[in-house]
Amino acid sequence: MPYQAPLKDMLFVMNELADLAAVNALPGNEDATADTAEAILEENAKFVSGVVAPLNAPSDKEPSWWHDGQVTTSKGFKEAFKQFGEAGWQGVQHPVEFGGQGLPKLFATPCIEMLNAGSISFALCPLLSDGAIEALLTAGSDEQKAIYLEKLVSGEWTGTMNLTEPQAGSDLAAVRTRAVPQGDGTYKVFGTKIFITYGEHDFSDNIVHLVLARTPDAPAGVKGISLFIVPKFLVNADGSLGERNDAHCVSIEHKLGIKASPTAVLQFGDHGGAIGTLVGEENRGLEYMFIMMNAARFGVGLQGIGLAERAYQKAVAFAKDRVQSRDLAGSAGPVSIIHHPDVRRMLMSMRSQTEAARALAYVGAGLSDVAHSHADAEVRKVNLAVYEYLVPIIKGWSTEMSQDVARDGVQVHGGMGFIEETGAAQHYRDAKILTIYEGTTAIQANDLVGRKTVRDGGAVARNILAQVRATEAALAGVDNVDFKAILGQLSAGSKDLEAVVDYVVANVKTDVKGVFSGSVLYLKLAGIVLGGWQMARAAVIAQQKLEAGEGDAAFYKAKIATARFFADHILSQASGLRNAIINGSAGVLALDIEQF
Amino acid sequence: MPYQAPLKDMLFVMNELADLAAVNALPGNEDATADTAEAILEENAKFVSGVVAPLNAPSDKEPSWWHDGQVTTSKGFKEAFKQFGEAGWQGVQHPVEFGGQGLPKLFATPCIEMLNAGSISFALCPLLSDGAIEALLTAGSDEQKAIYLEKLVSGEWTGTMNLTEPQAGSDLAAVRTRAVPQGDGTYKVFGTKIFITYGEHDFSDNIVHLVLARTPDAPAGVKGISLFIVPKFLVNADGSLGERNDAHCVSIEHKLGIKASPTAVLQFGDHGGAIGTLVGEENRGLEYMFIMMNAARFGVGLQGIGLAERAYQKAVAFAKDRVQSRDLAGSAGPVSIIHHPDVRRMLMSMRSQTEAARALAYVGAGLSDVAHSHADAEVRKVNLAVYEYLVPIIKGWSTEMSQDVARDGVQVHGGMGFIEETGAAQHYRDAKILTIYEGTTAIQANDLVGRKTVRDGGAVARNILAQVRATEAALAGVDNVDFKAILGQLSAGSKDLEAVVDYVVANVKTDVKGVFSGSVLYLKLAGIVLGGWQMARAAVIAQQKLEAGEGDAAFYKAKIATARFFADHILSQASGLRNAIINGSAGVLALDIEQF
Repeated sequence: MPYQAPLKDMLFVMNELADLAAVNALPGNEDATADTAEAILEENAKFVSGVVAPLNAPSDKEPSWWHDGQVTTSKGFKEAFKQFGEAGWQGVQHPVEFGGQGLPKLFATPCIEMLNAGSISFALCPLLSDGAIEALLTAGSDEQKAIYLEKLVSGEWTGTMNLTEPQAGSDLAAVRTRAVPQGDGTYKVFGTKIFITYGEHDFSDNIVHLVLARTPDAPAGVKGISLFIVPKFLVNADGSLGERNDAHCVSIEHKLGIKASPTAVLQFGDHGGAIGTLVGEENRGLEYMFIMMNAARFGVGLQGIGLAERAYQKAVAFAKDRVQSRDLAGSAGPVSIIHHPDVRRMLMSMRSQTEAARALAYVGAGLSDVAHSHADAEVRKVNLAVYEYLVPIIKGWSTEMSQDVARDGVQVHGGMGFIEETGAAQHYRDAKILTIYEGTTAIQANDLVGRKTVRDGGAVARNILAQVRATEAALAGVDNVDFKAILGQLSAGSKDLEAVVDYVVANVKTDVKGVFSGSVLYLKLAGIVLGGWQMARAAVIAQQKLEAGEGDAAFYKAKIATARFFADHILSQASGLRNAIINGSAGVLALDIEQF
Repeated sequence: MPYQAPLKDMLFVMNELADLAAVNALPGNEDATADTAEAILEENAKFVSGVVAPLNAPSDKEPSWWHDGQVTTSKGFKEAFKQFGEAGWQGVQHPVEFGGQGLPKLFATPCIEMLNAGSISFALCPLLSDGAIEALLTAGSDEQKAIYLEKLVSGEWTGTMNLTEPQAGSDLAAVRTRAVPQGDGTYKVFGTKIFITYGEHDFSDNIVHLVLARTPDAPAGVKGISLFIVPKFLVNADGSLGERNDAHCVSIEHKLGIKASPTAVLQFGDHGGAIGTLVGEENRGLEYMFIMMNAARFGVGLQGIGLAERAYQKAVAFAKDRVQSRDLAGSAGPVSIIHHPDVRRMLMSMRSQTEAARALAYVGAGLSDVAHSHADAEVRKVNLAVYEYLVPIIKGWSTEMSQDVARDGVQVHGGMGFIEETGAAQHYRDAKILTIYEGTTAIQANDLVGRKTVRDGGAVARNILAQVRATEAALAGVDNVDFKAILGQLSAGSKDLEAVVDYVVANVKTDVKGVFSGSVLYLKLAGIVLGGWQMARAAVIAQQKLEAGEGDAAFYKAKIATARFFADHILSQASGLRNAIINGSAGVLALDIEQF
């Protein structure tokens, strides 16, 4: 099944919802025009459709494999990664100084969505490199930047994030890996890291492991974690590769999905110690790692959106092709199943949620660009706060959504969906990791409740809700049945979200477990209300374009219909979520542990 | 992970909700006492936990395999099936006349749930045999009964259902397999059947294929389909096995889940014609097949419940064992993750939905027994109508629910859940077939709307809603916060369901596509309202027991808390579903096919 990048929707969202013009107006972004966006997206779409997307199904059948400490990746991956690096796709959002294209996050975002629609297993390697690059840009020494950044940006080397240990998954306070200073500026690292994505592979000459570890005198808990660069091969002063470092892949995991992406167990220091250098200052590792993680969390949200788009396209193609049963409203022979209302309902559910999540993520990318580059510090601060509120929602909601979409995708295929050769099942399997890695949905929800809502007393949330109200006013200005339905559901949903924010802020101190028992539901509620808000904004703009007789009328009509579907079918879930959050903690917490 | 049959809940549901005493009072059911139920369930639980459940994970890793037309099943399956037959478990609900135990469906139901909790792949073979036995009991000739029934009931032979062809999945009107009369009372059958569960295996000497085919002069469409017995080996007059029949397994499928269950492509008549005999009358095959299908659909609902229970138990065990992060309300060291509110929420969601679906299914089984055996024809008729209304809900809702539960089950395990060795992922993969085979959820929903709601103008649905109102009155008699919450959600949900029934009946003629675009949502709404009704009934009874100081107080308290959770978290989704059904069809149907 070929993948067709949804360029029309991507460009609509960039220009009309994520305010590309405002991003273009930021200092340093003079080249980031709408025309540049169109050209880059078209070029990226060609690369993904031509090179990456065809690898997705075959690489699932012949995953990467481990032998004697080496990992051979799936057929075609190595060559595709070479092309990816040489064409400059790793560097879209990274500084020109280190060989990147220096474009805004808003421009990199659709490229990352496309790459993940092509193959999540493939796209994971660049995603991890992006994180390593961000961390080094922020906290690396000039020497470290000089040694590593250009190679990472060009795709000659790749990066990894080494957080998890057997006893330390979500809880980084439990990290035990040790880093012992050698007196020469280097450290010897000892420990075992698990679940290391692309921890070993054959794409590149070197792999730049970023590793969380404790120095001998470090305090306990998360305040005693430092960040180290531990390359697979040491790097000589002239930039050439030196000795093999004592960091070895002892096995890779047998997984439900993303089988082509090697998930490594890495053993550091079993043969005398792995040589590493400290990034930034000691005991500030968690802070630096969060730079990588926030970028990676946003990226995982895009994985959900890309996967959902691909699953949707596959289901549409099958539904148009498969002939089965008569049309309910007709008496002629059998028709393609897209004529059947429940198939249509599933396709609209897949489509509307994918479009809503895309809009929310791209809007987030635009906010991040403003937060990064605007001349006015106050504007930067306000936009950063909104962006940071959105990150756990973009990660958590888009990925939960992708599982719903992948499940419907299999269902549309009927019995054929359960046969692996059809390919729909792969999306169902692949999707399941997205709500787990880079922080489970519960971890995102903890972030949303704690750092993003309680800390400022709900101020940012209410600022966003005020913007939703402005969209509600615009909806009220259009007098037709679709806009009335959208307004009704959005205004009910935004009231529900406001009530939940008030509840969270008012009760977190007196009833912390009660509030957190609804944290994931709050995240989902925020996702559907803010996703529905973006769909409503899109509908208002589409209506304006239609009234002005501008552009592609069929596209704008479909956008309004899709927004209507989202309102009636998805936004309408808000009241149930509100009840479960505000009244539902008693049921969550009533049983003693022995009663389970 | 060992499986512990939830005997206490099963017996509570049988006795208190499904009215075992009334079933025991039916003519011919004198032995079906509460004591017998307890003895049988305990014995079955021992067999499943000791013999079947340990095979589930290993058989997923080493599925059944095809070689030269033969299928070798997973290690241990053949021996387990032999024990299953010899112990009489295939015959629980079948007539004593043919070697069965002659017990009510209410007694067979928990046994089938347990067997599926043990291994869905294993349990599928008996499930198909049950269907074949039902069809032959209803429509077989005395000679056919004499040849086949005893062997099927004893498990010496097994049965299959051959409906699907490459061009005929949900749409049986498209069946092309031909049956040509030979003038000697036999037919020669020619055609290809796909997705035939246990169409070939090594459990038994013979396999009794029940095959849908068309005779030469049959009318087009579903009115021209007849049912044939086509055994793998012909049977001599003395009951011994004769020639190998021309029915061959040419391949088995490579599937997402239930890998140990062989899914066969069967070729009939490639070497001269497969010999078959007609079951009942020509052109009435669909009617007979529906006997098998209704039994099988109920059985697939039980598969969902069994899988959900197993996934829940696995998640509970992991959550009690895995230590990670501090307790939110405490400052001591890390605790087992069952202390974390979101883990608790997922476990309660899994538990409450499993219990609700179990209660609804067992109540359905009790109604079926009354419909089958009551002395008064009018009582039989009324109970049959309610049972038949419930069957698509028990099948559709319990299986959709099982996918939600299996997904949460993986999520509770975090990163470990994504590793195949952990075993949680198998449930997620296995569950996906349950909403597809024996009629997709949309097919169940068509049945619910068309045959079960529109045909009688919603009369049966309103009869059931009147019973829900009686439970609401009982809830109102208990003055505490849990019962107030349950009453609030149940009364709102039953009003939503009533509004939807009214909408369906009023609009199906003028807006058939609009009504059917909400059919699956109506099925889900009916599932949560009627499942919530059963949980409310359970809570009322639990409260009475507590007030009377009878029985296991911890069990009754947990039942009330679980009913409360279900009300706040699951029943509260009713209003959103009502809106999507009644107002949501415009969004479903707005796009032209080219716009997808």
